[in-house]
Amino acid sequence: MKARFKAVDGSIVAPTGFRTGGVFCDIKRLGTGKGSDKGQKRDLALIVSDVPGSVAGMFTTNQVCAAPVKLCVPRAAKGIAQAVVVNSGNANACTGRRGMKDALAMADLAEETLGLPAGYAMVGSTGRIGVHMPMDSVRVGIAAAAKVLGSSPRHAEHAAEAIMTSDTRPKQVAVEFKLGGKTVRIGGICKGAGMIQPGMSATGARPAAAPGVPAGLHATMLCFVTTDAAIDATVLQAALRESVAHSFNRITVDGDMSTNDTVLVIANGLAANRKVKTRRGPDFAAFQSALQHVCLTLAKMIVRDGEGVHRVVTVRVSGAKSFADADAAARAVANSALVKTSWHGGDPNWGRIIDALGYSPATVVEDKVDIGYSAPGSRKVVWSLRRGQPTRVSYAELCRAAAPGEFELHLRLNLGKHEAVMYAADLTEHYVEFNKGNVADPATLGG
Amino acid sequence: MKARFKAVDGSIVAPTGFRTGGVFCDIKRLGTGKGSDKGQKRDLALIVSDVPGSVAGMFTTNQVCAAPVKLCVPRAAKGIAQAVVVNSGNANACTGRRGMKDALAMADLAEETLGLPAGYAMVGSTGRIGVHMPMDSVRVGIAAAAKVLGSSPRHAEHAAEAIMTSDTRPKQVAVEFKLGGKTVRIGGICKGAGMIQPGMSATGARPAAAPGVPAGLHATMLCFVTTDAAIDATVLQAALRESVAHSFNRITVDGDMSTNDTVLVIANGLAANRKVKTRRGPDFAAFQSALQHVCLTLAKMIVRDGEGVHRVVTVRVSGAKSFADADAAARAVANSALVKTSWHGGDPNWGRIIDALGYSPATVVEDKVDIGYSAPGSRKVVWSLRRGQPTRVSYAELCRAAAPGEFELHLRLNLGKHEAVMYAADLTEHYVEFNKGNVADPATLGG
Repeated sequence: MKARFKAVDGSIVAPTGFRTGGVFCDIKRLGTGKGSDKGQKRDLALIVSDVPGSVAGMFTTNQVCAAPVKLCVPRAAKGIAQAVVVNSGNANACTGRRGMKDALAMADLAEETLGLPAGYAMVGSTGRIGVHMPMDSVRVGIAAAAKVLGSSPRHAEHAAEAIMTSDTRPKQVAVEFKLGGKTVRIGGICKGAGMIQPGMSATGARPAAAPGVPAGLHATMLCFVTTDAAIDATVLQAALRESVAHSFNRITVDGDMSTNDTVLVIANGLAANRKVKTRRGPDFAAFQSALQHVCLTLAKMIVRDGEGVHRVVTVRVSGAKSFADADAAARAVANSALVKTSWHGGDPNWGRIIDALGYSPATVVEDKVDIGYSAPGSRKVVWSLRRGQPTRVSYAELCRAAAPGEFELHLRLNLGKHEAVMYAADLTEHYVEFNKGNVADPATLGG
Repeated sequence: MKARFKAVDGSIVAPTGFRTGGVFCDIKRLGTGKGSDKGQKRDLALIVSDVPGSVAGMFTTNQVCAAPVKLCVPRAAKGIAQAVVVNSGNANACTGRRGMKDALAMADLAEETLGLPAGYAMVGSTGRIGVHMPMDSVRVGIAAAAKVLGSSPRHAEHAAEAIMTSDTRPKQVAVEFKLGGKTVRIGGICKGAGMIQPGMSATGARPAAAPGVPAGLHATMLCFVTTDAAIDATVLQAALRESVAHSFNRITVDGDMSTNDTVLVIANGLAANRKVKTRRGPDFAAFQSALQHVCLTLAKMIVRDGEGVHRVVTVRVSGAKSFADADAAARAVANSALVKTSWHGGDPNWGRIIDALGYSPATVVEDKVDIGYSAPGSRKVVWSLRRGQPTRVSYAELCRAAAPGEFELHLRLNLGKHEAVMYAADLTEHYVEFNKGNVADPATLGG
């Protein structure tokens, strides 16, 4: 499938008929009670389609979820939208009834300013938890963003900057491919660096948990995707659910699932392709494949830019008795403090890995387990453990296998046919230093 | 109950009829391929009763469990023992058939050297995973330890030192109380600093997991308890199970459950109390209460001496719908990287706490949650959140509440009557630095 789409510039404004703008309106300053000491940082963006489009969303399954999530779940279910208003600096989470009122007011302001019908704007927020949204700033910001809307890559860059919190760089991607006889584009921006292990569903409700599998074990990550494809909202939702299951819901930085995790897609149909109306057939497959590529590319950018992250590790579990087992085994290893610190040290410590497998909810049999390393995407695996016993591979060679900034960890349980992957990160002193915060500066209290 | 027993010196040799000895026999050196650069450290101990006694044990529920655990489970089930041989420096875990042979040889050697019947020695090991036990050293060590057995506090101190790995200090306690008309003593030593979240059962088998509750989420901790009480083995096992459920199985340093976690108790009856033969009645209650006090005192010492630990936090969840919910909520908060780093910073970050509650498997309703702080054991709670909303308590006061080296965190879900406690620790740069290891020194690979 990969050959079917090519990378293009401009992320969310690459598709026909989208404009965006990102501005600084002082939410970060007011949200924290202090002036920014790093200069003005954009903190509000608008993303607007020229025409109403299909919309789909995936939302945190955290039971404590933010006001913008509560607002967006029913709006996404209606399937039609034309704009997104998003801010950083304040998560509008744990803000009670006033928080809901503020989220709705943000949507209303965006709709009025842009001249859209009521209910056509979606809302996203990220930043401090438990502080009321500085609505005066928001009002100023929405007006300002509406004045600078445009379709150049610079505009997209400003939007990608406006959603950043502890991110060190903006995250953007766009692809172009053929769909129903036309050239179609999908673009996306995202943010996220800490409080990252999303477990999103379409309604924010938890899936029924299989026994032994933590329900929605899973920071604020926000992702906004635009496309000019013509596609029914229900089909778009199906494509997004599948794409998120294989991307954002497979990443972890610190194992903490946020109150605000949100992915939204607006498809405005301006590519004029043959409308995708069903999950069967090649059009759906082509669209879903491209959407998943966009989501996975963005999801991996989040892990690489994770707070204090030095190494990115793809944990591949295979041979599990069930998918639930494969998933649980991969998450246990990906979130083990001892495994993550060993990755930081470049230490091929298979003892900690098999220990984590053994305490995971997955069925694991010690003398069946294989543990190996490879370069990303390579089939050449260096095995440290075979059937529960150390191989003859030298310690020096194993150290080399665990030394790159990115590598894959292969965990074969050899008990069945199921597999799962997690895109994970090491645990460093820098993560601790960053997150222990500074009690003199409540700005660090963000979620 | 607390008034019923008093602290005494000598830990495991405080009870009548026990002797111990700890020696250096070079297991640490051979196990790591390097000489110790910190001088000789004791690495093998014997604990011996003058007469055979009742024995009970609790063992890791990790599916990948060490050879000494596999050896001890059936021996504990038989209910009779007279000695323990324990080493540090090598965990004898993931060592295959040779590992089992070595564990059995350790028991055999101890029995022969001490002149005990076959099957009367228990075995414990902690240290590196995946390296065969240096049996020549073990042989020398058992002979040497047998020659230095004694009943002075200095002897107990040597045994407590011999089981240390990353511990910075030996951990010991003993109490004296009245039981069945006589003065009885219980003493214990333990070790553990990293890979700490034990979840032990009598057979090492996992309990049937309630849906949504991670089965045996839970480093090497080893604990050896002696008592001169006269008590039936089955009753002793019941008392130990209850005691461990309220102590070692309630602690977490890093959330990683070890392959070797073991608690063993030998009761030799030399106090000549009226034998405790049933779980009903005041004798059982008095004994269990004293045993639990010993276990809890030792368990808390493990958390306080946890790798890189600066702050110890008692997480108390109440008002949960079920015990499983209370337990899951407490573990989610106690193991959250973001919550633990905020504790390190002395940061009263309730946003991260309610976030962790929200993604835990427990049922949590945002606008019902109360979050507060108190001094250990104090009823004066400073509330930061009431019914999901920030209180008027000043940020400065909350910082003072979260500043002590030890404090209690009160989490009221206000949904039911169930409660659970976890004794937890902060996550510091020192933990990361220690555990990232040194790839030039495989000695740090230990589990």
